[in-house]
Amino acid sequence: MKLQNPRGMNDLSPEESILRNKIIETIKKTFENYGFSPLETPIVERFDILSAKYAGGEEILKETFKLKDQGKRELGLRYDLTVPLARYVGMNPQIKLPFKRYQIGTVYRDGPIKLGRVREFVQCDVDIIGSPSNLADAELLILAARVFEKLNLKVEIKINSRKILNAIMEALDIPDMDKIEFILSLDKLEKIGAKNVIYDLKKKKIKEYKEMGRLLSTVKIKEPDELKNYIRKLFEKKKKKFENTEYENGFDEIIEILSYLKNLNIKNAGFNGTLARGLSYYTGVVFEVFLKNSEIKSSVVGGGRYDEMIGKFLENKSYYPATGISFGIEPIMEAVKIDKKEIKKTVTEIYIVPINTLKESLDIAERLRKEDINVDVAFDKKNIGRSFEYADRMNIPYAVIIGEDELKKNKIKLKDMKSGKEEMLSVKDVVKKFKG
Amino acid sequence: MKLQNPRGMNDLSPEESILRNKIIETIKKTFENYGFSPLETPIVERFDILSAKYAGGEEILKETFKLKDQGKRELGLRYDLTVPLARYVGMNPQIKLPFKRYQIGTVYRDGPIKLGRVREFVQCDVDIIGSPSNLADAELLILAARVFEKLNLKVEIKINSRKILNAIMEALDIPDMDKIEFILSLDKLEKIGAKNVIYDLKKKKIKEYKEMGRLLSTVKIKEPDELKNYIRKLFEKKKKKFENTEYENGFDEIIEILSYLKNLNIKNAGFNGTLARGLSYYTGVVFEVFLKNSEIKSSVVGGGRYDEMIGKFLENKSYYPATGISFGIEPIMEAVKIDKKEIKKTVTEIYIVPINTLKESLDIAERLRKEDINVDVAFDKKNIGRSFEYADRMNIPYAVIIGEDELKKNKIKLKDMKSGKEEMLSVKDVVKKFKG
Repeated sequence: MKLQNPRGMNDLSPEESILRNKIIETIKKTFENYGFSPLETPIVERFDILSAKYAGGEEILKETFKLKDQGKRELGLRYDLTVPLARYVGMNPQIKLPFKRYQIGTVYRDGPIKLGRVREFVQCDVDIIGSPSNLADAELLILAARVFEKLNLKVEIKINSRKILNAIMEALDIPDMDKIEFILSLDKLEKIGAKNVIYDLKKKKIKEYKEMGRLLSTVKIKEPDELKNYIRKLFEKKKKKFENTEYENGFDEIIEILSYLKNLNIKNAGFNGTLARGLSYYTGVVFEVFLKNSEIKSSVVGGGRYDEMIGKFLENKSYYPATGISFGIEPIMEAVKIDKKEIKKTVTEIYIVPINTLKESLDIAERLRKEDINVDVAFDKKNIGRSFEYADRMNIPYAVIIGEDELKKNKIKLKDMKSGKEEMLSVKDVVKKFKG
Repeated sequence: MKLQNPRGMNDLSPEESILRNKIIETIKKTFENYGFSPLETPIVERFDILSAKYAGGEEILKETFKLKDQGKRELGLRYDLTVPLARYVGMNPQIKLPFKRYQIGTVYRDGPIKLGRVREFVQCDVDIIGSPSNLADAELLILAARVFEKLNLKVEIKINSRKILNAIMEALDIPDMDKIEFILSLDKLEKIGAKNVIYDLKKKKIKEYKEMGRLLSTVKIKEPDELKNYIRKLFEKKKKKFENTEYENGFDEIIEILSYLKNLNIKNAGFNGTLARGLSYYTGVVFEVFLKNSEIKSSVVGGGRYDEMIGKFLENKSYYPATGISFGIEPIMEAVKIDKKEIKKTVTEIYIVPINTLKESLDIAERLRKEDINVDVAFDKKNIGRSFEYADRMNIPYAVIIGEDELKKNKIKLKDMKSGKEEMLSVKDVVKKFKG
């Protein structure tokens, strides 16, 4: 038997687990601060749920792990947390709306393994079901900004609306058959620049490339008011109705959301009129978060409004306006790793080294543990040198030496493992030092 | 498409998730207080690992979910957290021993679904690899006692040793072929009583039943010293060596462990000479924890020492002494549920009701959230009545009303949703009230 993991599914060492737990704890805490409650669904779903129309789509099904239970029922490992949420909402008509839930869990995709692509990874999702308000979208963006503030990571939040992309296409008379390719070209603007976007459109034989070129050279694509005016004029020129349509509404929603963010002094969020966020089920606002000054170029957070997906998925007439955001833990972990000078190898804060004082040392360990200090006891080590070597190798910040001398004085010796400095303290003093 | 879960795999509503998270948080905190660090392994393992000799055994393989990846590799969902730990230890020869890790995660068993038996459930495991010391076993028992103290659940901890069961069988000359059945009968003593155990042995044609009957009527089976003396005399009578054997050692280990527990004033743990803990890989101390005054009769925690399993599993000559304990979350949750009068439906602590003060209310929400208070804002509700109804139905403890009057006075109105009492407070005062 060769000892190995399934391809694309990795272990997390204690060192990595401690770091990931810390990040997840921060994200979870922030989710709860914004009034989202947890929901848990199984890793395994029935295959007919995963493969339903309006679920994840054809492409993702090719990457879905399939299995069967004893009763020969077809099952699959979940590929996201949105389909299980839609199922849960459908199965629980009694839930009060708006339903604000978060879920943090692993999802599975049996795809090719490239740099940074694995087959088991963690998603952290927050969604608001049942609110059509722009404030719901704004709340998700504020929440995202706060998470990265707390993680000490500089990010850029890019916001757009599917309605604005639709407005551009309507203004330019892009035929339906060209729309997907048009959006895909536009989405690359930041990466490849205006010239190459136009070249791309031309190559794809989308004949409106000239008009698009004029738009890009006239308007600042990050100024929603400017873009709105330009599009309005194109609508007027072509005798199309713009006022009080979903097209105009798309701009106004973005302008309103940006004003909420400005009000709260969130400066790293901005409009980006070409952001498309793939081809999925979004119907309104879309957004992505990118790390600044980082090797990681892909987005670390993505989301948007999907007002139609749940109703369609549930095959019922109910309208479930919905907006959500998903954090990818793996790239965030990579970024935090680079940033952190000191990675913890263990949760242990104090390593107790008993010198012929085993019973008393255990007792002192218990007293410290009761004060929520993480304590380990060197009951296996043959001598003090070995104990210190272990504490050192594990990066445990403090050792406590308990010998008969110390016990007589009712003190213990606290050693700072980094500086080597030693202090004689009472147990109470040690607690004070650690817990303030 | 019918909306349903896979059989035996259930959703956890926000209410249940909040409760489970709280229990897991308590367990995790305690694990870390005792110097255990987290380890994460994938839900999916290669099938040859899961089906290896000395892994989970034949019976469990019948209940293992199998799947394949695109490369046609045979995989399976993990049925426990011990086999992945053994694999991890084998793949990482550089880890420092003793290796103290915890892991909390779902495991899968495709078995029959009875009351309380599901196919996806959570295990919380702590193990110490590389320490042969009795203190390692004692530490796990102390940790278990502390977890239940913190959860406010009264429990009974039962401790025995496989070596003591072996000593009894050696003293009684139980033939090898009868040993398994003998242990299984003995294990039922607490449930069915001495008379029925003897009857059971007789029925199984284990002819030493009379001698066992004499033992049970002579010795208090919960007094290790008494049992040790009785067994020693039987050994002497039959001219067998007892002193300085593993048989004697089994008793002495238990007596030492009990003295550690007594020293720390842990009163709910005791010896139980017939506890067997199934037929698994244990080699020394075994223990189980039972709830007191509870409907739940099966054990909520089980564990013990398994010094041979990892070395055999890894097919190498290295010796990996190991001891571990596993908490079952589902029965603990049931017990806590019964105990709790008030179950939380949401994490939200304050529900802000803006009255034509949306921007200011958002700003105040942000200030409270930054102080780690969980806040939701009623931006969707059409009127105050509806907002209060929502807060009430969701059991949110406080509402904050922010109208123009309040803003003029630089105050907000805090309403206790249970008592109905209202107070005019500054934002600072509200923070003080919540965060002390």
